[in-house]
Amino acid sequence: MQGKLIVFEGVEGSGKTTQMAHTQDWLIQSGILQQLQQQGWVSQLVLTREPGGTMLGKTLRQILLHSSEEAITDRTELLLYAADRAQHVTAFLQPLLEEGALILCDRYTDSTVAYQGYGRGLDRSLIDQLNQIATGGLQSDLTLWLDVPADVGLNRARQRAAQDRIEQTHLSFHQRVQQGFTELWQRHPQRIMRIDASPEPEAIAQQIQEILQQKLSAWYCTKD
Amino acid sequence: MQGKLIVFEGVEGSGKTTQMAHTQDWLIQSGILQQLQQQGWVSQLVLTREPGGTMLGKTLRQILLHSSEEAITDRTELLLYAADRAQHVTAFLQPLLEEGALILCDRYTDSTVAYQGYGRGLDRSLIDQLNQIATGGLQSDLTLWLDVPADVGLNRARQRAAQDRIEQTHLSFHQRVQQGFTELWQRHPQRIMRIDASPEPEAIAQQIQEILQQKLSAWYCTKD
Repeated sequence: MQGKLIVFEGVEGSGKTTQMAHTQDWLIQSGILQQLQQQGWVSQLVLTREPGGTMLGKTLRQILLHSSEEAITDRTELLLYAADRAQHVTAFLQPLLEEGALILCDRYTDSTVAYQGYGRGLDRSLIDQLNQIATGGLQSDLTLWLDVPADVGLNRARQRAAQDRIEQTHLSFHQRVQQGFTELWQRHPQRIMRIDASPEPEAIAQQIQEILQQKLSAWYCTKD
Repeated sequence: MQGKLIVFEGVEGSGKTTQMAHTQDWLIQSGILQQLQQQGWVSQLVLTREPGGTMLGKTLRQILLHSSEEAITDRTELLLYAADRAQHVTAFLQPLLEEGALILCDRYTDSTVAYQGYGRGLDRSLIDQLNQIATGGLQSDLTLWLDVPADVGLNRARQRAAQDRIEQTHLSFHQRVQQGFTELWQRHPQRIMRIDASPEPEAIAQQIQEILQQKLSAWYCTKD
């Protein structure tokens, strides 16, 4: 039994966390998860995130998002994200996928391309190299890109109580990140599905459920 | 004024820390440092180490050497060392070298080749890639390899109060590391100088001082 890795991507305030919770609720309350488990297709449903999906990752997430004692250089940041990912893939994602888990993951390799590549302007081939090193080649089975204009997303994120180090960065940075996600989606239309994340959460959830119903049917040969 | 980077390398218990302190004392007490400063060749003498040469690095060093909550995967370890190095090079070593500092550094890129490459058996070209990414190409001006048999070094290290995660690893690991240093020395005879680190500390210090006197003369055109 091989599990599936579903990744949620998007700029700050695109609603990833909210939509992952909605998706979890829907899979449980609709009975879809139970059905997949009873048919032996899925072992369990797991929610996780990067950075911070492991114990080590939580420490790294703290350093990456909340460190203010010392400026973290761009290359250091890139290598710390890669270290978090290597630990997450090897110690968490891979064992669960081998058991047959259905995994919802908040951010993965595309975020590194968008944030560090497009946002910070670091060498793209360097990022691809590090993503390859960190993942050992593990790709998502489906990436849901929550597409919202950078300024809209940033305004949403800024209404939260505390802002982290990334959210405090200037708007133009987030616009480059958004451009990065757009180009990734255009380049990988099979793997990355675009979700219009401008409307209300319920309308976004509806789009995600439609896509997931199709994908789950295709993956697990179940009827709609 | 361009500074110089002198690296001390060797297995656990080879005496790096002791010999760095001896070297510092000797440079100060002999008047050599003062002379180099008065002639405008050297701005200052700096001692540092990897991992842990920066504030961020201290956190990473803690994770790398003392983490027991969770097994760190080999690739994660490699990426964390690279992150520590990237921060150390960019935020610490490079600015100091530009000022003309004479830097003594406990471990650098050769340790990663010896420990992660030879010791853990990770892909050598991967390590070279990561060393290149982390250092941006900055090499040591001189590396002093304190050559001591792995078992002798490990016995010395084990006489200390507390052992870290690396020191607790099996002897055969440290023997592979030692083999790594040996081959690195054979491959880079210009950059890496071998010190016989089996005798008493004073005899080791004597060898280091002889090599340094020659190197300093060559670098700074001073008389002996």
